[in-house]
Amino acid sequence: MIKLVVLDVDGTLTDKSRMISVNAVNAIRNLKTKVALVSGNVLPVLYGLKIYIGFDGYIFAENGGIALINNNIEKFFEKDGPESFLNDISGYTSARGILTNRWRETSMAFTANHDEMDIIDREAASRDLYIVDSGFTLHILNKGQDKGFAVKKMIDIMNIDYNNVLVIGDSQNDESMFSLGTLSACPGNASEKIKEMSNYVSGKCYGDELFDVFRHFDLIH
Amino acid sequence: MIKLVVLDVDGTLTDKSRMISVNAVNAIRNLKTKVALVSGNVLPVLYGLKIYIGFDGYIFAENGGIALINNNIEKFFEKDGPESFLNDISGYTSARGILTNRWRETSMAFTANHDEMDIIDREAASRDLYIVDSGFTLHILNKGQDKGFAVKKMIDIMNIDYNNVLVIGDSQNDESMFSLGTLSACPGNASEKIKEMSNYVSGKCYGDELFDVFRHFDLIH
Ligand SMILES: [Ca+2]
Ligand SMILES: [Ca+2]
Ligand SMILES: [Ca+2]
Ligand SMILES: [Ca+2]
Ligand SMILES: [Ca+2]
Repeated sequence: MIKLVVLDVDGTLTDKSRMISVNAVNAIRNLKTKVALVSGNVLPVLYGLKIYIGFDGYIFAENGGIALINNNIEKFFEKDGPESFLNDISGYTSARGILTNRWRETSMAFTANHDEMDIIDREAASRDLYIVDSGFTLHILNKGQDKGFAVKKMIDIMNIDYNNVLVIGDSQNDESMFSLGTLSACPGNASEKIKEMSNYVSGKCYGDELFDVFRHFDLIH
Repeated sequence: MIKLVVLDVDGTLTDKSRMISVNAVNAIRNLKTKVALVSGNVLPVLYGLKIYIGFDGYIFAENGGIALINNNIEKFFEKDGPESFLNDISGYTSARGILTNRWRETSMAFTANHDEMDIIDREAASRDLYIVDSGFTLHILNKGQDKGFAVKKMIDIMNIDYNNVLVIGDSQNDESMFSLGTLSACPGNASEKIKEMSNYVSGKCYGDELFDVFRHFDLIH
């Protein structure tokens, strides 16, 4: 029995330009099961989504670095490493921080030229950090900070099993939560790797898959 | 000719529990005119709404204290006064700060018992601060920091006239932008005072008025 539905945001509830699907909003509002949003975005942006979509559940921001759990904010990682990393590489590569870094507390986000990713990845590894690509921006994270960490935290808090959880996502930074052994699904726009890792691949895309996925797993009728 | 539509958020795009109306989202997406959100909420929450609704325009948070204008964040007031005010009155009244204060940069928000509002208002006035009630929370603001200030800023930036602007809101903290001499409209759930100040009062409520208002002013067909 599914007791928790974990949703990625960008590309899973939204289209490529990040406009949210009103079908996705309606699907979440129709669901009786507890919902969690787990995203690379910052906590206040996810907090806004929680309030304005209107659901009961958890939000994990910055790929699991910080969360709102039962109306308390909990921080699981620090931003010192990611912040000095970004300061340093901005000096000798094309890497540039993005607007939402103002609200980050455990990671940094940036853009960079594709052909410099090897140098950037190597520098990250030498500092016990790593980089993940959400398909919308690059994130520099602490070791162990990923969406899989977030899902394990929630399983622990709720005292449930992996097979009580359904995860839905579309791209690289979702892989850590697709390899836990939970139930899993993805929209038609997901990466090949996520499709291979999914129990169910919807034919619908960019948020319009939610009703289909929820029906497939008997969560709504 | 209307060149800017200024929208309050809570109670104007949302219902009493703050769930956003999908009709309001669709109405904003159908509008060709520039849009601004002006709210007592924090900038990252409004930034999320801008991204996920997907519109071109301005966001003014904290009742005009801070804004995102052409991808730059501008701060027009400071939080020092509001912050020490809230610290002090929390010591001898029921006033308590709320979660989103973590992200406030120019004001503070709080809840308090109704019967203490006289003491709290007097203390605010003695510090050149004032309190406004959004209907969802109380805001402690600097003198001159209100939604009217935000609308004047945008008129200045766009180099337009008051009659090129349509403001839409529902409650006390919208009054400062309804008294500027712009065009104005409100949902059926607006306060009596806002209804009296409006050029057009819609029969629809909580976000479902937007299509009706936009049609009334010939902004969509
Ligand atoms: Ca995604
Ligand atoms: Ca995401
Ligand atoms: Ca599997
Ligand atoms: Ca309002
Ligand atoms: Ca508001």
